[in-house]
Amino acid sequence: MSGERLIYLPLGGAGEIGMNAYVYGYGKPGQERLIVVDLGVTFPDMDTTPGVDLILPDISWLEARKDRIEAIFVTHAHEDHVGAVGHFWKRLGATIHARKFTAAIARHKLDEHGAPDSVLNVVEPWPAVVEAGPFKVGFVPISHSIPESSGLVIDSPEGRVLHSGDFKVDHTPVVGEPFNPDLWAEVSKGGVKALVCDSTNVFSPLPGRSEATLAPEIEKLIAAQPGMVVATTFASNVARLKTIAIAADRAGRTVCLLGRAMRRMVETATECGLLHGFPKTVGPEEAASIPRENLLLLVTGSQGERRAASAQLAQGSYLGLKLQEGDSFLFSSRTIPGNERGVIKIMNQLSEKGVDVIEDTHGLFHVSGHANRPDLQLLHDIVRPQFLVPMHGEHRHLREHVKLGLERGLPGIVAVNGMMLDLSGNAPKVAEYIDTGRSYLDGSVMIGAMDGIVRDRIRMALNGHVTVTMIIDENDEPLGDPWCEIMGLPEKGRSKASLVETLEADLAAFVNKAGRRMLRDEDKLDRELKRIARSTTQAETGKKPEVNVVVSRLS
Amino acid sequence: MSGERLIYLPLGGAGEIGMNAYVYGYGKPGQERLIVVDLGVTFPDMDTTPGVDLILPDISWLEARKDRIEAIFVTHAHEDHVGAVGHFWKRLGATIHARKFTAAIARHKLDEHGAPDSVLNVVEPWPAVVEAGPFKVGFVPISHSIPESSGLVIDSPEGRVLHSGDFKVDHTPVVGEPFNPDLWAEVSKGGVKALVCDSTNVFSPLPGRSEATLAPEIEKLIAAQPGMVVATTFASNVARLKTIAIAADRAGRTVCLLGRAMRRMVETATECGLLHGFPKTVGPEEAASIPRENLLLLVTGSQGERRAASAQLAQGSYLGLKLQEGDSFLFSSRTIPGNERGVIKIMNQLSEKGVDVIEDTHGLFHVSGHANRPDLQLLHDIVRPQFLVPMHGEHRHLREHVKLGLERGLPGIVAVNGMMLDLSGNAPKVAEYIDTGRSYLDGSVMIGAMDGIVRDRIRMALNGHVTVTMIIDENDEPLGDPWCEIMGLPEKGRSKASLVETLEADLAAFVNKAGRRMLRDEDKLDRELKRIARSTTQAETGKKPEVNVVVSRLS
Repeated sequence: MSGERLIYLPLGGAGEIGMNAYVYGYGKPGQERLIVVDLGVTFPDMDTTPGVDLILPDISWLEARKDRIEAIFVTHAHEDHVGAVGHFWKRLGATIHARKFTAAIARHKLDEHGAPDSVLNVVEPWPAVVEAGPFKVGFVPISHSIPESSGLVIDSPEGRVLHSGDFKVDHTPVVGEPFNPDLWAEVSKGGVKALVCDSTNVFSPLPGRSEATLAPEIEKLIAAQPGMVVATTFASNVARLKTIAIAADRAGRTVCLLGRAMRRMVETATECGLLHGFPKTVGPEEAASIPRENLLLLVTGSQGERRAASAQLAQGSYLGLKLQEGDSFLFSSRTIPGNERGVIKIMNQLSEKGVDVIEDTHGLFHVSGHANRPDLQLLHDIVRPQFLVPMHGEHRHLREHVKLGLERGLPGIVAVNGMMLDLSGNAPKVAEYIDTGRSYLDGSVMIGAMDGIVRDRIRMALNGHVTVTMIIDENDEPLGDPWCEIMGLPEKGRSKASLVETLEADLAAFVNKAGRRMLRDEDKLDRELKRIARSTTQAETGKKPEVNVVVSRLS
Repeated sequence: MSGERLIYLPLGGAGEIGMNAYVYGYGKPGQERLIVVDLGVTFPDMDTTPGVDLILPDISWLEARKDRIEAIFVTHAHEDHVGAVGHFWKRLGATIHARKFTAAIARHKLDEHGAPDSVLNVVEPWPAVVEAGPFKVGFVPISHSIPESSGLVIDSPEGRVLHSGDFKVDHTPVVGEPFNPDLWAEVSKGGVKALVCDSTNVFSPLPGRSEATLAPEIEKLIAAQPGMVVATTFASNVARLKTIAIAADRAGRTVCLLGRAMRRMVETATECGLLHGFPKTVGPEEAASIPRENLLLLVTGSQGERRAASAQLAQGSYLGLKLQEGDSFLFSSRTIPGNERGVIKIMNQLSEKGVDVIEDTHGLFHVSGHANRPDLQLLHDIVRPQFLVPMHGEHRHLREHVKLGLERGLPGIVAVNGMMLDLSGNAPKVAEYIDTGRSYLDGSVMIGAMDGIVRDRIRMALNGHVTVTMIIDENDEPLGDPWCEIMGLPEKGRSKASLVETLEADLAAFVNKAGRRMLRDEDKLDRELKRIARSTTQAETGKKPEVNVVVSRLS
């Protein structure tokens, strides 16, 4: 164990889809020089993270080794890969390397957190490389659902690792670079130790389809609509935005972009020289004066996000624009599992307005940005690594991806967040288990997932809340009876009497019988008042509430 | 308007999938004699109804007209049709009519709520009819995913209405009656005014498949598994349970039923003489002693329900049974939108255990219980009503169903919950809008959806909670400083000082400056303390909490 080793450690993204953060290291055990690949976020939900604004990987392991971090590399500009750079740049203190478009998106995030220009370094694609301690890292273009997505060539004295990034096999991606098998063969020809590989679509059996296949269908659809057309898709899918905008243009419709994220993506892609021939767009005010059959709104909110343009249009109006009977609404997207309720709500609101909703039921209006099963096998076959390390997937995806590799004799290992692999030698081995987890941006404060704060909020949502107050005088005697306030509980319970009054009566009965020893013992009194409040509430309502007890002592 | 009329009023189920409750009436306006079809429930979710146990229709309109209710008819034993009979029998005070199996399930629910035997009347299928005031109602067998499902023939002096109930076109349903086009033609031949019709699968373009098509695939699958097999489906799908159990038996596996609902359904179906040839089952204790390759567990929880057998097995063990590498888990079900997260969680937990998950990706292991688009058209064509009234669907389903009817010249109307239709005459017209809504079973108490109780719980979950207490003495002077308690908020905010201490300092500063007039004015003081608590918390954490203020006055 005295020699150098090459390690891989996912801190996010392995065992979940979202919040990607992968660490590679090379050096003596415990002294490895480190690089970080991607710093993403994931999004909260009411079930597990009510009130939370954003979920980020817990980077305390990295932060404690800040002096060993050589560089941060960001493969592409999706939120689950770049979303945390603003929050973490200071805590990690290393330069962030990205290609031009990704860097431009990262720059906005860094600006919001006061990062200086020097934090970000714009890199050219392979064969250019960044030297980072013992590593040389190059960005290899690969097709995905956002421009300039890249896999990484990661060279170390222990050999070469290919980190696929998010990818699909698309030879005609409309915007951005096509998948280039020759390029991937070239970077693989000297031998690849490990392919660390996207697993998102490992359960999709058919080869993926190209972004370019959508244009004829979308054109036909838009040309056939009688009223206003609204189309929504992922704001970052610049190719899709272009396809839809051109289809609108050809149908004699003026395009209006709604939603900040969408406008930013189009502007940034244009500034970076990636987007050509995008039709001229108008703002919402001008749009309002255009006959509806000559208009197409391209809007954010394909996942049913409550504040996005889609939801607001469905609810009534957005920036003066309103939908009406005869209009059409195209979801050029797939609903991510967990977002169904929000999307369905919008569809029903649109239905109430007489708006025709067009979903991607038959795959005519949306294609995935990730490699399907045969496409994954294609990359395995081109790269021919010593072994496969699936990433970017829930446990079931990673496990299935290992099985897929084994079908053709490629060995692999399931490594989830916190599982440090030693990639040295001929086969990967588990080197160590690291405590990892999630941190929450909660309002303006970063909190830990295990701090109990969100757990208490969930409990209040499930059980309601009772406040119990009482005063104890200088002689350790109760001054008056305890008072109660309830929140999130019914005013009357089983007995049909006021719940507050029943609580106060039961608490008063206890206090009046309690000896001085009880009244003097802060912890015990607190515990008893809580117990009575809970059991009375349960008897009355069937719910065991969260209770705050405040005893004021005049002594 | 002085003549009699025939009315239709959905109180639940029209504009949503779930919580079915439809009212028909005949008589002079405002004096119609009423019958109720179905009394179902729907299920809460964390997003909109945290802590709620069950959602029921608001029946206050009906209750206020209790003396006019002639009878209640329940079409089949799914929870969204029969789930509320126990809760509502007393408030409605009318006899509940159902066929044998449905009545047996209803009986359990009525027993739990102390209803006497006389509340429930077991009826024979068509041509038997129940006379209910001006109505004659007959139960016409129709295939669905539960035995003895029925449509209703509803005869009134204004003519005949056919209420389809939930149905599919299945000529070989494995258990229960096949779809019989001749029977439906027979009840339609005298002319049908309105077809009130299931809309659930109106977006499914292909003809539905029969339950019987699954047996060969399920048999092949189960025979091929090396370890223990666990299969989950809807507990009430007795046909599916039989198919799976027989497949297990043929593969030399003993069947163990896990989950109360599933055991009850099998027992009831057997008692009612509907289920023949179901293999002998064993209890969990005996199952534990059977070699795993000879065992099949048939379990509840196909929708990821947290307390059901599936979730518990995925988490560790259930009644002494444990899964391990090499075992298989079959979802013979479809995930209902909104339940994805729970189901995916189970799949990942199973993956972590090395259990192979088999989903119904290609429709081999599950078929729907509802009529698809061509099947709906088939019923339209058989019945040939004057007009169509879609039910059992969200708004988008109802609207699409009307469109589907129009494709072949059948007129229809979208009527959502609360919209009373006058079905007299040649075309339906909207007679009135009734206030409807939902009521919640919350612990042991029924509360209204608009009572604000659940809203407060959601707010606490999103924003956290602060308790502020202070004492004011006999002279209207503050006795000491205000105290705070927080719940669901971070201990430290932006300033890195204790949030409670910052709150207490700001509140003390206010109290010490406040004049006696302020301290005397209960409402104003309460409002100001709340405002300060909220604004300090927001400055510190970015969150505006819910606040309870308790001011104790010694005077």
